Amino acid sequence: MKKSALIAVEAAFECLLQLAEKEPIGDVERVALDDAEGRVLAEPLIASLDLPPWPNSAMDGYALRLVDWIGEPLAVSQTIFAGQAPEPLQSGTCARIFTGAPVPKGADCVELQENTELLEDGRVRFSQALRPRQNIREQGQETRCGETVLVVGTRLGPAQLGLAASLGIVELPVRRRPRVALLSTGDELVRPGQPLGPGQIYNSNRTLLLSWLKRLGCSVLDAGILPDDPQLTRARLEELAEADLILSTGGVSVGEADCFGQILREEGELALWKLAIKPGKPLTVGRYRGVPIIALPGNPASSLVTFALLARPYLLRRLGVRAVMPLAFQVPAGFAWSKPGKRREYLWARLENGRAVLYSNQSPGVLLSATWADGLVEVIEDTTLAEGDSVRFIPLSEVLG
Amino acid sequence: MKKSALIAVEAAFECLLQLAEKEPIGDVERVALDDAEGRVLAEPLIASLDLPPWPNSAMDGYALRLVDWIGEPLAVSQTIFAGQAPEPLQSGTCARIFTGAPVPKGADCVELQENTELLEDGRVRFSQALRPRQNIREQGQETRCGETVLVVGTRLGPAQLGLAASLGIVELPVRRRPRVALLSTGDELVRPGQPLGPGQIYNSNRTLLLSWLKRLGCSVLDAGILPDDPQLTRARLEELAEADLILSTGGVSVGEADCFGQILREEGELALWKLAIKPGKPLTVGRYRGVPIIALPGNPASSLVTFALLARPYLLRRLGVRAVMPLAFQVPAGFAWSKPGKRREYLWARLENGRAVLYSNQSPGVLLSATWADGLVEVIEDTTLAEGDSVRFIPLSEVLG
Repeated sequence: MKKSALIAVEAAFECLLQLAEKEPIGDVERVALDDAEGRVLAEPLIASLDLPPWPNSAMDGYALRLVDWIGEPLAVSQTIFAGQAPEPLQSGTCARIFTGAPVPKGADCVELQENTELLEDGRVRFSQALRPRQNIREQGQETRCGETVLVVGTRLGPAQLGLAASLGIVELPVRRRPRVALLSTGDELVRPGQPLGPGQIYNSNRTLLLSWLKRLGCSVLDAGILPDDPQLTRARLEELAEADLILSTGGVSVGEADCFGQILREEGELALWKLAIKPGKPLTVGRYRGVPIIALPGNPASSLVTFALLARPYLLRRLGVRAVMPLAFQVPAGFAWSKPGKRREYLWARLENGRAVLYSNQSPGVLLSATWADGLVEVIEDTTLAEGDSVRFIPLSEVLG
Repeated sequence: MKKSALIAVEAAFECLLQLAEKEPIGDVERVALDDAEGRVLAEPLIASLDLPPWPNSAMDGYALRLVDWIGEPLAVSQTIFAGQAPEPLQSGTCARIFTGAPVPKGADCVELQENTELLEDGRVRFSQALRPRQNIREQGQETRCGETVLVVGTRLGPAQLGLAASLGIVELPVRRRPRVALLSTGDELVRPGQPLGPGQIYNSNRTLLLSWLKRLGCSVLDAGILPDDPQLTRARLEELAEADLILSTGGVSVGEADCFGQILREEGELALWKLAIKPGKPLTVGRYRGVPIIALPGNPASSLVTFALLARPYLLRRLGVRAVMPLAFQVPAGFAWSKPGKRREYLWARLENGRAVLYSNQSPGVLLSATWADGLVEVIEDTTLAEGDSVRFIPLSEVLG
C-alpha cells in the first residue's frame, strides 16, 4: 500500500481554524452575569462609567491640600468613610479618610496614617514630605467611560465577569452554546455498566470528551456508540442535523468494517489526514449533509491529544475566540530522547524540580499516563534530545478549560 | 501606630494548609460519572480488570506465529475485527487483524499490512524480519486488576473520568461539595443593576468569586453585601452556621466603621495577618461560632491574588487534594524591575515571544489587568531585575480551575 505524505501539525491547525472561521456560530443570547461563566462575549463590552468613578484614597490616612502643609498640625474637619459623599475640604484643615473613600474636592494628596501624629487636641501633624496626588487613585485610571474593556470573542472567566460587575452590568451578550454531537465508533466498545463480552472493552472516549466539552461550554448531544449497520447508522446521523459539529472517535480510515466511514464517503466531503503527530496520526475532517465532522482517533490518549491541540481550538474559533493556542513554556528535559521520529511527539510529562520527566508508558492506548501527567512535552520531528536540553511544555490546565 | 511584622507568603500558605487538614470535609456521596467532573475522589479507584483485558493488536495487519515465518507466504485462516472473539490461530497460517482486535491464541506477533504483500491466491508474503510480541499491546500493560489507579484526593477531570469509564465504572465516591458562604463588606458597595449613588462603586468581588467557587465545585451561599449594622450583621452571620467556610472580601482590619471585624473580634478567634504580598497585604483568618472564615482584601485584584494563592489551596486541601500548588515556570523577564520591595509582588503579565511582559497598570484596584493577563509574575522580596533575568511565571489557567 502506498504511503501518503504526512501533514504537519501546524498545517492541520491552520486549516481547521480557516474552516472554523468560514462557519462561525454567530447566534447571540443574553445571559445573567452569574450564568455567563465560560461563555464567549458576542459584543464588545464598553465601559458605561469611569473606573474609578471619582478620585479615591488608596490608603487609610488623611486627605489635605499641599499648600496647607507648612509644618503646622491641621485640624480634622471631616471623616470620610468609603461609600460616603464628602464635603469640599475646608481650607487649612485635613480630612480623615479611609481606603476607597472619595477624595474631597480641594484635597490634592493623601498621607498614610502611619506617617502622621494625632495630637491630644485632635489636630494631626504631618512630618514627611508630600507629593501632589500621592495615594490618590484618579478617576478613570482603570478605564474611561466609552472605552472598550473586553473585545468580542473574549472567554468570560472570574476576572472578566468581575470587571463587568464593576461596571454595574447584570447581563451580557454571549454566543450560544455550540451543539456538539458526540459519537463513538468501534464494534469492540461497550458502555460502562454493561457486562464485557470477549474481545470487548469499555468506551472511555465518550466520558472523557463529554466532560471536556461541558468545560468548554458546549451543549452535548450524546449519540452513543454507532451500530455496525448502515441503515441504523444513517438513521442515527439523521438525528444530528441540528448539530454544529459531529465529533466522533474511532477509525474512519482503512478498517473493512468501517460502516461510518463508508457512509461519510458516500454522502459528501471527507478528508483523511495523516498527521505528523504521535499519538494521534489519523484525523478525519468532513461533513455529513452539511454538518461539519471531526473524527478523532480511537485510542483514548490519541483522542485526548488531538482534541486538545486541534478540535478544541477549532471549536473555540467557531465561537470567535482569538486566543486558542495554549501557553507553552521552555523547560529542561529530565530525560534523553534517542529515537528521532517522522512525527511530532507529545509525551505525558510532569514538572519535577523544574524539569520535565516522562511517564513510563507512552502507549496511545494508555489513559493512566494522562491522569498522571500535568503537561505534554513536545518533541519536534527528526530530533534527539540530551538530558537538560530545552523542550516545549504545555500545561494540561491550558487545554482543559 | 506600630508596625507588626510581615508574614511570608510561604508561612501563610503552610499555616492555611495545616488549618485545612485539621478540618477535612470528609462526607462522601456517590455521583454518576457524567456528573463527577471537577469533584474530588473520596476513595481510591482500584482497577477491577486488566487494561487491556487481553493482548490486542496495535495496528492493522496480520497476526502470526514467529516459527511459521520461513519466508513462504501464509494462508489467511481468519479475519479478526475489533470486538470479536478470535479462534486460536491455526498452525501454519496467519490471521487478518485490525487495530484493537484480540490477538488469537498461538499468535506471538503482528506485522503491519504495509510491510506485507497480498498474493493473488489470497496468501500473504512476509518479507521483513519479525520480533516476538511486536505490535501487540499486552494484557494488563496499562494496569492490572487490583492496582490502585487513582488515589484519594484526585480531582476528576476528563482523563480521570475517561480512565474510570475504561474500567466499566458508572459512578464514583466523591467528597460532597464544600458549602462556601460568600459575603462582601464595604459601605461603598452596590449590587450591579442598582443605581450608583455618590461615593459608591459596584461590587465586583461577589461576581468574581462566585464564578470561581463554582469552577472549584463549591456550593455557594450568597450572603450578599453586609449591612453596616451590628444587629443585622449578626443575624446574617447566624444564617451561615451550616457553611464550611465563610469567605468575605473587604477590610476586617483598622477601619473605624468595621462592624463585621468588631463582631468577629467579639465572637471568637481572629488572626489579622499582614502578608508580605502585593497586592493583598491584609488577610484575616478566623472563626465565627465554629465556622472558619477567610477574609480577603477588598481590592478586586488583591482578592483575586490572595484567593488564587491562599484561599484556593486551603479549600482544595479541605477536600483532601494533595496537589494544591499551581505549576510555575521560569521565563525571561521582558521588563526591568528597579524597586526592591519588602513584600513579594505578583504582577499581571503576558507571555510574548517567550518573555513575560507586564500590564501597564498594576494598581490593586484595577481588574482590567487581570482580564488582560495570562499569568502572574512573582518578584521576590528585596530583588531588582534586569530585562532577561529569569522570573517565576504562574499561568492563570493553573489557578482558575
